Amino acid sequence: MAERKPGGLAETLRWRDNRLELLDQRILPNRVEFVACDSAATTADAIRAMVVRGAPAIGCAAAYGVALEAQRFLRATPAELKAGLEAGFAVLAASRPTAVNLFWALARMRETWQRAEAQHRAVAPTLLAEAQVIHAEDIATNRRMGAHGAALLPDTACVLTHCNAGALATAGHGTALGVIRSAVEAGKKIAVIADETRPFLQGARLTAWELQQDGIAVTLIADVAAASLLARGEVDAIIVGADRVAANGDVANKVGTYPLAVMAQRHAVPFYVAAPCSTIDPSIASGAAIPIEERGREEVAGYGTERWAPEDVPVRNPVFDVTPAALVTALITERGVARAPYAAAITRLLAGK
Amino acid sequence: MAERKPGGLAETLRWRDNRLELLDQRILPNRVEFVACDSAATTADAIRAMVVRGAPAIGCAAAYGVALEAQRFLRATPAELKAGLEAGFAVLAASRPTAVNLFWALARMRETWQRAEAQHRAVAPTLLAEAQVIHAEDIATNRRMGAHGAALLPDTACVLTHCNAGALATAGHGTALGVIRSAVEAGKKIAVIADETRPFLQGARLTAWELQQDGIAVTLIADVAAASLLARGEVDAIIVGADRVAANGDVANKVGTYPLAVMAQRHAVPFYVAAPCSTIDPSIASGAAIPIEERGREEVAGYGTERWAPEDVPVRNPVFDVTPAALVTALITERGVARAPYAAAITRLLAGK
Repeated sequence: MAERKPGGLAETLRWRDNRLELLDQRILPNRVEFVACDSAATTADAIRAMVVRGAPAIGCAAAYGVALEAQRFLRATPAELKAGLEAGFAVLAASRPTAVNLFWALARMRETWQRAEAQHRAVAPTLLAEAQVIHAEDIATNRRMGAHGAALLPDTACVLTHCNAGALATAGHGTALGVIRSAVEAGKKIAVIADETRPFLQGARLTAWELQQDGIAVTLIADVAAASLLARGEVDAIIVGADRVAANGDVANKVGTYPLAVMAQRHAVPFYVAAPCSTIDPSIASGAAIPIEERGREEVAGYGTERWAPEDVPVRNPVFDVTPAALVTALITERGVARAPYAAAITRLLAGK
Repeated sequence: MAERKPGGLAETLRWRDNRLELLDQRILPNRVEFVACDSAATTADAIRAMVVRGAPAIGCAAAYGVALEAQRFLRATPAELKAGLEAGFAVLAASRPTAVNLFWALARMRETWQRAEAQHRAVAPTLLAEAQVIHAEDIATNRRMGAHGAALLPDTACVLTHCNAGALATAGHGTALGVIRSAVEAGKKIAVIADETRPFLQGARLTAWELQQDGIAVTLIADVAAASLLARGEVDAIIVGADRVAANGDVANKVGTYPLAVMAQRHAVPFYVAAPCSTIDPSIASGAAIPIEERGREEVAGYGTERWAPEDVPVRNPVFDVTPAALVTALITERGVARAPYAAAITRLLAGK
């Protein structure tokens, strides 16, 4: 535990001693520890429990989860391997519903499996290699996204972000925070306002910590204070990540994104979504069809050993919401910046044009 | 400690053994304890520390604070009494800046003092009697406000509220929650959604507790989830209290009220503000001139023994925001329901017409 990358930040996920090690994001920033996964089931448990979170990081973790499962059947019959891997895919697919990168990564791993079978290549090492490619590609993708997005920011800007779409939500660099990091690397003076992001406090625990480690100025606020700062003209741009983008450009992201986008429009502040093309789900026509995860009451009722809600008071805890495409100023991807009309722009992006 | 009113709820404030006892709202719902105040300074400390909060309750507490201070000078010279009371007024006026009821109550106590002097009546008992009148009037005011407001709600409704504008924010019955209580008493089926209300969690700790004690159905949500529920059509009305209403109808209330009003307008849900006339400040033309309190970082950085924000990360903590009058469907007062144009309606209300 407590090992850091040279840049200061601990790695979100890493492959070590034939296991997947996940930085435990539930206990940041107070403790820096890793959780080891050795199967699809333990990886799915870690995703469900939010040891790892953030759409791209969930996709990477799920890919490694498939590779781990294949390793467990090295001496098994082909039928046993097939049954084991199918079960592994199923348990991973059932871990969390909203982030489409999970399903994107699983589909890619399934294709790799089928190709390995067809080409009579060893399944386990082929799947591990593919997971490592997905991992490395995610960092490269975020770098490209960062460069595209950085160009949108003024030379001096106060940028507000919600939740954590940073290195901790990805294999590295980050999506929304990747844009900010790239802008800072390009010499722009960027100050960040981080929404604390109730109920899981990813903004307070992860975004503030990440940016502090990187020496980027960050100020923490309660989510509900964002509107006041927008009204006072203190915010120049908002950048968030995404968990799923529908074919029409509607964006599912952490709960609280939608009201933030509404406030941004009211105060004429640009509202950017930074997400890789793997977050776009062309099979879903609009945000209305995106499944929205509801989590348990404990996240809302207290924190750690503290409880502030009265016992037995019912809690609703939808953890994502949908922002209509009309509120999105631009969608920043690794293939470029898309703007309205989004349906056509997204079709072009996914066609690689 | 732990004494309850027959109705189930502990009293927000009470006069006992020649002292002011305040229900300690910082430790609700986990513990029911009272803090005793014996001077203007200890009352001001309790207001500043949020032992007591909510605009009408702060006004009542401040009135008792003046009465307590007068008691300390029973055997003093008139000059000593005058100097002591002036200091008491000053320390109370400096306790919290946004809720105008504080200044309204102090002005009323000052008039009472001057009248007592002019009429050669004993100052201390006259001031105590006036504090007790303010206390009793507040409950009567909330009852009248409740009756006016209850008529606005459908027979079956899901009502969302922010912060605590309940019995705990007043001498009893509540403003926003008073409307809900009166509607329930009138036989309407009201279910309440309570925003948890970061950072001080008045919704989770106080509103959920109050309504639970009264047997009114309440569900707790993170503040940022309100927009999702509005978008899904699950909310029929929003009712909040106020800390100060400007002459043009702009409303200063707990931070998070403004974005909620914007979302209500977007989804065509009525947005009601329930506040006594003592919360209206005709000396302030618009919300832009209302002083907005900023509190310390600890409320945002953690809770109780838990800390979730990294050390040394700066925090901004404005605890009120301003909702433009244009977003307010109606202002519910003890003298009736005011609607736009608010400047004229407020002038009529304050003239008692």
